Amino acid sequence: MNENIRSHYFENDDKMHEECGVFGMYDFDNNDVATSIYYGLFALQHRGQESCGIAVSDTEGPKGKVSSMKGMGLVNEVYTPESFEKLKGNIGVGHVRYSTAGASTIENAQPLVLNYVKGTLGLAHNGNLINAPELRKELALTGAIFQTTIDSEVIAYHIARERVNSASAEEAVMKALRKVKGSYSLVVMSPRKLIGARDPFGFRPLCIGKRDNAYILASESCALDTIGAEFIRDVEPGEVVTISPEYGIQSYKDMCQEKHARCIFEYIYFARPDSVFDGMGIYESRLIAGRCLAKDSPVDADMVVGVPESGNAAAQGYSLESGIPYGTAFVKNGYVGRTFIKPQQSQRESSVRVKLNVLKEAVKGKRIIMIDDSIVRGTTSDRIVGMLREAGAKEVHVRISSPPFLYPCYFGTDIPDREQLIAYNRSVDEICKIIGADSLAYLRKERLVEISGGRQYCHGCFTGEYPVEPPKEDIRGEHEDFKRGEDSKVK
Amino acid sequence: MNENIRSHYFENDDKMHEECGVFGMYDFDNNDVATSIYYGLFALQHRGQESCGIAVSDTEGPKGKVSSMKGMGLVNEVYTPESFEKLKGNIGVGHVRYSTAGASTIENAQPLVLNYVKGTLGLAHNGNLINAPELRKELALTGAIFQTTIDSEVIAYHIARERVNSASAEEAVMKALRKVKGSYSLVVMSPRKLIGARDPFGFRPLCIGKRDNAYILASESCALDTIGAEFIRDVEPGEVVTISPEYGIQSYKDMCQEKHARCIFEYIYFARPDSVFDGMGIYESRLIAGRCLAKDSPVDADMVVGVPESGNAAAQGYSLESGIPYGTAFVKNGYVGRTFIKPQQSQRESSVRVKLNVLKEAVKGKRIIMIDDSIVRGTTSDRIVGMLREAGAKEVHVRISSPPFLYPCYFGTDIPDREQLIAYNRSVDEICKIIGADSLAYLRKERLVEISGGRQYCHGCFTGEYPVEPPKEDIRGEHEDFKRGEDSKVK
Amino acid sequence: MNENIRSHYFENDDKMHEECGVFGMYDFDNNDVATSIYYGLFALQHRGQESCGIAVSDTEGPKGKVSSMKGMGLVNEVYTPESFEKLKGNIGVGHVRYSTAGASTIENAQPLVLNYVKGTLGLAHNGNLINAPELRKELALTGAIFQTTIDSEVIAYHIARERVNSASAEEAVMKALRKVKGSYSLVVMSPRKLIGARDPFGFRPLCIGKRDNAYILASESCALDTIGAEFIRDVEPGEVVTISPEYGIQSYKDMCQEKHARCIFEYIYFARPDSVFDGMGIYESRLIAGRCLAKDSPVDADMVVGVPESGNAAAQGYSLESGIPYGTAFVKNGYVGRTFIKPQQSQRESSVRVKLNVLKEAVKGKRIIMIDDSIVRGTTSDRIVGMLREAGAKEVHVRISSPPFLYPCYFGTDIPDREQLIAYNRSVDEICKIIGADSLAYLRKERLVEISGGRQYCHGCFTGEYPVEPPKEDIRGEHEDFKRGEDSKVK
Amino acid sequence: MNENIRSHYFENDDKMHEECGVFGMYDFDNNDVATSIYYGLFALQHRGQESCGIAVSDTEGPKGKVSSMKGMGLVNEVYTPESFEKLKGNIGVGHVRYSTAGASTIENAQPLVLNYVKGTLGLAHNGNLINAPELRKELALTGAIFQTTIDSEVIAYHIARERVNSASAEEAVMKALRKVKGSYSLVVMSPRKLIGARDPFGFRPLCIGKRDNAYILASESCALDTIGAEFIRDVEPGEVVTISPEYGIQSYKDMCQEKHARCIFEYIYFARPDSVFDGMGIYESRLIAGRCLAKDSPVDADMVVGVPESGNAAAQGYSLESGIPYGTAFVKNGYVGRTFIKPQQSQRESSVRVKLNVLKEAVKGKRIIMIDDSIVRGTTSDRIVGMLREAGAKEVHVRISSPPFLYPCYFGTDIPDREQLIAYNRSVDEICKIIGADSLAYLRKERLVEISGGRQYCHGCFTGEYPVEPPKEDIRGEHEDFKRGEDSKVK
Repeated sequence: MNENIRSHYFENDDKMHEECGVFGMYDFDNNDVATSIYYGLFALQHRGQESCGIAVSDTEGPKGKVSSMKGMGLVNEVYTPESFEKLKGNIGVGHVRYSTAGASTIENAQPLVLNYVKGTLGLAHNGNLINAPELRKELALTGAIFQTTIDSEVIAYHIARERVNSASAEEAVMKALRKVKGSYSLVVMSPRKLIGARDPFGFRPLCIGKRDNAYILASESCALDTIGAEFIRDVEPGEVVTISPEYGIQSYKDMCQEKHARCIFEYIYFARPDSVFDGMGIYESRLIAGRCLAKDSPVDADMVVGVPESGNAAAQGYSLESGIPYGTAFVKNGYVGRTFIKPQQSQRESSVRVKLNVLKEAVKGKRIIMIDDSIVRGTTSDRIVGMLREAGAKEVHVRISSPPFLYPCYFGTDIPDREQLIAYNRSVDEICKIIGADSLAYLRKERLVEISGGRQYCHGCFTGEYPVEPPKEDIRGEHEDFKRGEDSKVK
Repeated sequence: MNENIRSHYFENDDKMHEECGVFGMYDFDNNDVATSIYYGLFALQHRGQESCGIAVSDTEGPKGKVSSMKGMGLVNEVYTPESFEKLKGNIGVGHVRYSTAGASTIENAQPLVLNYVKGTLGLAHNGNLINAPELRKELALTGAIFQTTIDSEVIAYHIARERVNSASAEEAVMKALRKVKGSYSLVVMSPRKLIGARDPFGFRPLCIGKRDNAYILASESCALDTIGAEFIRDVEPGEVVTISPEYGIQSYKDMCQEKHARCIFEYIYFARPDSVFDGMGIYESRLIAGRCLAKDSPVDADMVVGVPESGNAAAQGYSLESGIPYGTAFVKNGYVGRTFIKPQQSQRESSVRVKLNVLKEAVKGKRIIMIDDSIVRGTTSDRIVGMLREAGAKEVHVRISSPPFLYPCYFGTDIPDREQLIAYNRSVDEICKIIGADSLAYLRKERLVEISGGRQYCHGCFTGEYPVEPPKEDIRGEHEDFKRGEDSKVK
Repeated sequence: MNENIRSHYFENDDKMHEECGVFGMYDFDNNDVATSIYYGLFALQHRGQESCGIAVSDTEGPKGKVSSMKGMGLVNEVYTPESFEKLKGNIGVGHVRYSTAGASTIENAQPLVLNYVKGTLGLAHNGNLINAPELRKELALTGAIFQTTIDSEVIAYHIARERVNSASAEEAVMKALRKVKGSYSLVVMSPRKLIGARDPFGFRPLCIGKRDNAYILASESCALDTIGAEFIRDVEPGEVVTISPEYGIQSYKDMCQEKHARCIFEYIYFARPDSVFDGMGIYESRLIAGRCLAKDSPVDADMVVGVPESGNAAAQGYSLESGIPYGTAFVKNGYVGRTFIKPQQSQRESSVRVKLNVLKEAVKGKRIIMIDDSIVRGTTSDRIVGMLREAGAKEVHVRISSPPFLYPCYFGTDIPDREQLIAYNRSVDEICKIIGADSLAYLRKERLVEISGGRQYCHGCFTGEYPVEPPKEDIRGEHEDFKRGEDSKVK
Repeated sequence: MNENIRSHYFENDDKMHEECGVFGMYDFDNNDVATSIYYGLFALQHRGQESCGIAVSDTEGPKGKVSSMKGMGLVNEVYTPESFEKLKGNIGVGHVRYSTAGASTIENAQPLVLNYVKGTLGLAHNGNLINAPELRKELALTGAIFQTTIDSEVIAYHIARERVNSASAEEAVMKALRKVKGSYSLVVMSPRKLIGARDPFGFRPLCIGKRDNAYILASESCALDTIGAEFIRDVEPGEVVTISPEYGIQSYKDMCQEKHARCIFEYIYFARPDSVFDGMGIYESRLIAGRCLAKDSPVDADMVVGVPESGNAAAQGYSLESGIPYGTAFVKNGYVGRTFIKPQQSQRESSVRVKLNVLKEAVKGKRIIMIDDSIVRGTTSDRIVGMLREAGAKEVHVRISSPPFLYPCYFGTDIPDREQLIAYNRSVDEICKIIGADSLAYLRKERLVEISGGRQYCHGCFTGEYPVEPPKEDIRGEHEDFKRGEDSKVK
């Protein structure tokens, strides 16, 4: 199959991408957890569509056999009912993954399953370690071998090495985490414990749920709702929790700190609107963004519309604040799947047109306020604005529910090179012209604090000021420079 | 694979189903049409998700070879870029199909491709012939053989037999159509013509479009938008059109009649909101339905919400009419695919919960008006109402943008047996109690004429009064009784 | 997948090809027959590797449902254990198919399953009707439609038409067969009978077996052995048999005639050595061929070897007759599968070398007599001779266990165009030089009668004298000229 | 798919199994090697059919990217032409694998590809390390993590650790190999060298070939023939060779020793007859085995036959020595593939009958000597003897070209538990009765030295005397006991 002319993501071609979702579950009543992990991952699918994996273990069985199954694609493509006949066990972890194209291979799918001195571990990780290359080099110098290019393997090595001199798995996890820098929300399955950890800045979400006599760790609370579990609380930034039948939830807060740096894009775009992240509802957050836009950048118009799906909540907020009626301008084709054939440049059918159509009758003759969550390269915005005009819109005012972003992200988000960003070296007016709008306004950076409900957040992509010093060389991507190596000359 | 615990349609478990979508294209400039048919079918995917097919022919090539490719599943699952290397030709027809489970086989996928006295035909059909069993029996008595159980084969036979004594393909088509009764929107590819036909009652939509020097026939106008084609006009009820480079569009109206019977459910639920059916915009139609509900069944409340996706337009109409704010109460998981594993009864994860989640914060403490397009069995309505209550809704008032339906459909729609219909032998109050709502109201039958913009429509499923006499025995399904047969005893 | 550089058949690149194998079974005790058909087809796999199919019916069940499953590839690739959960029934027919590339499509896979006036028929056919194009044209002129390009459809039409005025299915079959000319071994499943028929010349084999209370029809007796059934007898040339619980085997010999024309290549190459065809064992037949070669074309040598697998039996015959020891010179790689990637011309690994290797130590310094069954294009013979020389063979004498062939076959065998045949316009000496042998001899035509054990055979491919007049135009292939057609000009 | 009722190996159900084949290639002219590795693995397919893999690297390219592709199944099932578009590089290693069912997973497929301190390594290994569990435990105690259960990972770890303090990759390989005990033939791809190694006892074969300016390492010489390469020499027991453009082949013999222990079953059954193992031709070896049987266990008979394929060479040897004619008694169905559905016990079609059929006419009334290479459980021997009798054989004398074996193998061969071995606790007469033969004789142990051409061999499976002390506990299988582990109790 010629992958070049296909795209899993063509729906989000001009969006940033979250890099992963994690899910862990431990059923103290010894029920199998694999199908619940399946539905949990299904609820987290928006966080990663390239590969997925489930690993389970039977804490009480005679052999403690670990079973795992990973594959490329969506959870509904990878698993069949037969899959679950083999995935038996009452403790397990799961993962959905997005990655840049190069390393989108089955070898890099998670969870990572490995044997170490104390049995078998399963790890699933969401985030990005900024010192992973240094750690890999250090480990290699003491004889480590790497079979993947994912950060989980670096974390696993440190856990394994610390475990030799630690009294418990969680102690080893904590020692290991002290060595890594960057963002992580981590779930670890050890032979008899489920362990969760979140980096001290709390870049990525991770929460705890409960259903009957089972505990759950999940990237987002929507996954708890999906499986009918109750939300207990968020794992705090810097906290490590262990879940075991003997002690239930145990909390270790040695790494907790005052300074936090939640990824603000979780609120703006990544997380599902029905999730609650550190106490702030995502839907609410987006309504506020819309309200702020209405307050700061009002314009007289007949209808407020969102670019589906992600722009709809902010559009409703704008409508509520401004009193301008909320409406629907676009119909989105929901059947775009992983193997959809993307239209070629040369074809009359454009990618945008194939996925979105305008409701001409709703738009005709109207002055439209169109809300979108972000503009990355700007490659689709001009087409969408153009489609509204073609359909007879009299005016098109674009409002973006995030500030313009200009800087790379080192903490688990896929942002293209600076030169590709439409906001790079351009004024808002210039951008407005490029996309052909009658007016354009972004969310003011000052408003971000309202969106997060007053919580501390990372605004590195807008300001270039990061909570931790970014690496000097760009360490994003696949560390492929490491792949070659010297090999001493033959004597 | 155990198909029993999978479902392609679990999203629409409690909905009626349209049975098909058709698409035809003839490019007079000899460009290949297969990829445009692909995108056209993609736009019609909501009309049938079980199988799809494309057949193309080269009108000018030395061999006039017909190529076709059919498969089970969605168009994005069946076709790969490689598919189009084999589907070469400037004239073609395509089809998407829904069917009841039993006959969902590759043999029954359309278009039907066949050789007959004058070359090769490709047929794609949307609708249901109520006299198909009689016609099959008649044909069989003169030695016909049937390799499928689809109506297209019956039509094809009549075309083939009439063609022997007809001066042209369209004459044969017209003679053939005089013998069939029921609903059909038909596209036929003959060696040098594209032919479209719509039954005299106009049950199903069919429209004509144009792009550069190519003509298109499509079930819905949204498919024209998707491929960047211009809408020309609808094929009229009873009209046969031929498309050829020599004469462009030619129209034959011998079968046109005064009495029409458009399927009202195309307006209410089947068609895409961005389509226009015989001059009436579907989105507009649904806004009107919502407005009518607000007029006829008002209730004091804090927010109007739609059950996604199909309830949203009517909810907006209700909001506009009533002044009660439109809001979002549900988040739908858009990743449900053909192979999604449906939760078992015994599992905590219900089908509804897995696909829909409530925005708790948006709903909490509010009086909600919830708009849905129909209630068939009622199996999901009670769960959705329950989810709203769980999330803290103070009141839940359900409004349905169609009348209660009670009668079978013989014209191409999948409605369950009468005993399974919640409205059968129950008052609205009883239904209200079953689904647990605070109040329930259906659209009044009198309002249907507004929805169709004054056009004549079929209301058989609400009234039991059909535009044509329905067959005495239930002829829906697979005619499987025909499958056995006598075979005379051995002498 | 680029089919051009793959080959299912690269093992037999330079061989003639049989076109099909058929199998039918009727279990009077109502046991399911599908798995036995599977093993039967597996035993007949050498007769066709491009597609296969099984259709079964339940003669006693309440619904008499016919189930069928066809696919491209080998039987072990197409069927899984799950397949048989759907193939329920005590009567059934199966088919394996070879065809020329163009029409190797799923539409043309057999058995053909169809509804007709008296229920459902399943047909599987081995052979080639030389008047199929005329019959198709005739049928088309009375309004027939064709959904495949296989002869079975033509036969089915005639059966269906005759059935209307016949007292029984077998009467209709017999009337239908009177209209067709050419070669056929046919199995037909009607609702309550299994019918077998063989053309009056008996070109292709068909035999009857029995296992417990079940009867079997099979192309070759080896299929009976494979399923543990007892060989009853061959169906005679021109005979029609019906199998039913009421009457067991009934025989109709109206079409039987004196003159027969068994395909001599069934003895020489097509049939499996463990089959018995009209009373003559295939292995025995090949031993005789080898003996004849030894008698007619003796040469002094150290070892006789066969080109595996098909040359081995004749090599043993040569050895027995001449007293020169039989040995092994080649090791064949048995893992060549349908999807094997054939070496490109440019590669060092040749097709021959990849599938065959020489046992150097066995060959070195020896004078070798190498027996093969035929030379078609001669493209591999020179390579094999070359490999023997490379391995150190002192002399290589090639003996071919069939006469040179020069004429097309119209009766179900795939022979390339005359210009591609090495024997066309070349003397044996010239061929000997081309393939690089020290000497070359073919079987003398006079010996063919010994090979067939005195039975009448067709020698058309050697002599150009056919038992029935061949068609004037070449009717082999896909009748694609029929695919286009006129379509009258628009008025 | 229900794997229980399928079998990849049902052809060899009652055979021992070799565990792997390896292949490495380095083209100094920078041509891609992946397709040659493909054909090389295809020639080694008999050494392992469960999974296969190819890893290549570009020694000269700007990025030195390593590409690999592994899969379950035969090489012709795993690779498509598209595969090779991604497998670009002039140095590479490949592997085919057999394993016991439990660990037949994609994670355990080879080659193992890993990053270490000096770049990327690819390892492919044939053999079995008897101290692998101890080594794993040792490594784990210093913090190692294991992602597979294959020995290659243990070797890789040792290479990585030694490499830190070694001047070259080969030095690290040699230091690493000093720590492992057992059998191995190893090929390693480092960034700029291809390294091969064979254990000091030389249990498994490994040879060196050359084609143009490329060098090859392969388990068997038949793989060299297949790709048109010249045989250079065997790697000696205990030798390590490096292949590089600067120095060609370099040899390191520090580990070479006097005592060797070639697996005698490579001669008897595992290796392909066209291979030469340490100077002894396999075909020759089997001829000798047959001659020995004829000398030691003569019997008067009419025909000597082999059980195909592996018994044929010894049968020819018996025939040559005894003067009794060699013949063919069995026809084997060559279409048994990986997904063949094995007959159930309850079915009339037995596994043996489906794959083998008797040539009745060749056997009838004859006294047969039937040669097979071994009897493991004896489950098929009785059926084969029975089939000969059914076909009319007057006498059946069975001769086995190996001694009875009774002891486990720790060096890379799959032998069932002792209790399942037919020779365990039974006399030859008892076995003869069980299999229903008229007489039975095994090869005398004294003759083994003739089979190996005087080379030292391992006869542990016949005598229980092993060249190295076997482990106390049975370490064969998947080390699954290691999979669980303690995990300290929660504090």
